[in-house]
Amino acid sequence: MIDSTPLPLAGPEAGLRADAVRNRALLLEAAARLAAERGAAAITMENVAVAAGVGKGTVSRRFGDRNGLLQALLDRSEIQFQEAFLSGPPPLGPGAGAATRLRAFGPAVLRHERANLDLYLAAEPSPGRRFLIPARQLRHRHVTLLVREAVPGSDAGLLAHTLLASVDLVLVDHLVRAGGVSPEQVEAGWHDLLDRLLA
Amino acid sequence: MIDSTPLPLAGPEAGLRADAVRNRALLLEAAARLAAERGAAAITMENVAVAAGVGKGTVSRRFGDRNGLLQALLDRSEIQFQEAFLSGPPPLGPGAGAATRLRAFGPAVLRHERANLDLYLAAEPSPGRRFLIPARQLRHRHVTLLVREAVPGSDAGLLAHTLLASVDLVLVDHLVRAGGVSPEQVEAGWHDLLDRLLA
Repeated sequence: MIDSTPLPLAGPEAGLRADAVRNRALLLEAAARLAAERGAAAITMENVAVAAGVGKGTVSRRFGDRNGLLQALLDRSEIQFQEAFLSGPPPLGPGAGAATRLRAFGPAVLRHERANLDLYLAAEPSPGRRFLIPARQLRHRHVTLLVREAVPGSDAGLLAHTLLASVDLVLVDHLVRAGGVSPEQVEAGWHDLLDRLLA
Repeated sequence: MIDSTPLPLAGPEAGLRADAVRNRALLLEAAARLAAERGAAAITMENVAVAAGVGKGTVSRRFGDRNGLLQALLDRSEIQFQEAFLSGPPPLGPGAGAATRLRAFGPAVLRHERANLDLYLAAEPSPGRRFLIPARQLRHRHVTLLVREAVPGSDAGLLAHTLLASVDLVLVDHLVRAGGVSPEQVEAGWHDLLDRLLA
């Protein structure tokens, strides 16, 4: 489990010198490749150093320990996703209508989290902190704004929680592993739910 | 936190002699009164013994330790709730149509869990076990059957997860504590959601 689950809402590079930023980005790139190819378990300080062609000390100086490295990797992944729905191209980003963006959001969450499943599962907060993670609060604000416009007369804040819960990482992982449900079926469920809500 | 969160789906009295059953019920009655009046924190082996007018050894023999006592109290509470929706009077129990029972279920969950808030919060499972608790699986099967009848053409299993998530204990507690949302507003949200789904 990753210790410190709050994710920043902006890049963590502020205050670093240009070469340090580049160096950090290269190490995270190597770590992301490792995760994609061999799973989060393969992400060790040593493996990342080898993959990036640097000494282990360089990785330690940048991230402290393995936990710091995993947290940085999760931040990087979450920031990419945030950029996609806050300022990326439509239908996920601005430029499309609220209903269209809402339809696109569920599948985007599902695909993004499945592509980074190990990392997100490792960072899953305890029950008491589930709704206190800044990255989740940002998703909730985003969906609330879209719901307010696309589903008039609803309690947008509550409905946004319900929508996000329908594509919750832990639920989907449980369904896929234990329930014989495919990720595609969960995406279809999101669209069916929106068909009914937008009717 | 209560250690062992799986709840039985039937009474735990099987195999006990009649006086032991009566004795156990009296102790749980006393513990439930304590919880209602002073919160779950007040439930200690000693307080329950005093409240029931027995020696502390009697409480220990029956429940082992405080954790066993809390678990038994949670089981008792959950079994009462299960009886209400499985075999109690309508609109929650059989005798009413699926749509009516579905409407009644959300508010019933909300009120039941708020009335036993301390206990349910203490028993809240870790993320990885959230969907593996027998009592939750029973609720899910129940709601799935109602959804299958009341919302034709939907993926009933998925929609049941979504509906249950909208009245999730941890979410509602978060909203009430931090978000300035009232339990009544969450109940209204349940009805609004069903209005849209049943339309």
